Formats: sequence, C-alpha cells, structure tokens
Amino acid sequence: MAELVVLYKTPKDAAAFDKYYAETHIPLAKKLPGLKKYAISKGPVGTPAGPSQFHLIAILTFDSVGDIQKAFGTPEGKAAAADVPKFASGGVEMQIFDTKEV
Amino acid sequence: MAELVVLYKTPKDAAAFDKYYAETHIPLAKKLPGLKKYAISKGPVGTPAGPSQFHLIAILTFDSVGDIQKAFGTPEGKAAAADVPKFASGGVEMQIFDTKEV
Repeated sequence: MAELVVLYKTPKDAAAFDKYYAETHIPLAKKLPGLKKYAISKGPVGTPAGPSQFHLIAILTFDSVGDIQKAFGTPEGKAAAADVPKFASGGVEMQIFDTKEV
Repeated sequence: MAELVVLYKTPKDAAAFDKYYAETHIPLAKKLPGLKKYAISKGPVGTPAGPSQFHLIAILTFDSVGDIQKAFGTPEGKAAAADVPKFASGGVEMQIFDTKEV
C-alpha cells in the first residue's frame, strides 16, 4: 500500500478550519481516484514532549505511490489540491510513500 | 483507532540507519504492548515539491492514544524509546493522535 500523510499546522482560526475541512475539503478529497481509506486525527495531536505544531493530520491510503501521483493528475485531484490553500492558513506538509507492514 | 507517526529525518549514514532500524529497532518496537499494526515507508519518501526531508516514516497503530501512552510506560516501551537516539542521527519527530475514518 501507500500513504499520503497531510500534516496541517495550527491555523489562524481553528474553528473555521475545522468547519471548512469537514464541509468542503473532505467531500473533495474523497473523490480522489484510487483512494482506499481516509482517516483523520480526532481531537488534539500530541507529541512525547507536549502539544504538536500540527492541528490536524490526515492519512490517505492508496495502492501505490504511482496511484497517488495519478490521482493528482485528474480533475478531482487538481480540485482537491487547489482547495488546500483556501483553508490551510497555518501551512501544510505532505509526505508520500509506499509502505510495508513489518 | 490511534496512530503514532514517527518521522525520521535523513540520517548521517542512511545504510547504517537502515541496517540498525531493521535488525534492532523493529524487533524492539514490535514488543510494544497494544500495538495492532506497524507499517514503515518502503523506498524514498516524497513530497509534491520533490524529495522529503524524511528518510523513513513509521506508522504504528493502537486502539487509542491512551494505549500509546500506556505502552511507553512499560519496560518494552521504555526500551524502544531509549533505542531511538542510538540510530536517529538526523533527528526524529513523533505525532500521536486518535483517528476516525471519514
């Protein structure tokens, strides 16, 4: 499998972020072709040292990195990517990788 | 469910990191009480803009953040945590959160 991990830094207005993410971004991202599973953090994100710099983390599962790349070449992928700057006011990091269970 | 996402920045010696991680750290981390699933990145980690600052990303799944916290209070958890500085020469970030599927 492969993961797209999206780490959203704490936004300027967390309530507005949460509302937009739930009502607008999730429906767009769920249309990504090849998406197998979509999980997001529920409640605060923590670290061993205390609160995280990240407000929300999303893990989107696909069959392969190739499928993730293909997804973002589609109209649905372009729409989801173009939506991110509309709400990710704190910045965002994305990590893409194939995985293996150990 | 809940995730412990461990992001290892590029180490000084990637081959030595990979060998130590596979031979020593995975066996220690697999002993974490309550661990349900353990997946790691296979091959390079990427970002939409190019190569990632991270060499390896591990996603460890538990039932809850409470279970993750409990795991690191056990001798097995302390041993796994104490092992990380022995190989994570580039630094490491850990993110801990409950999840929901959307």
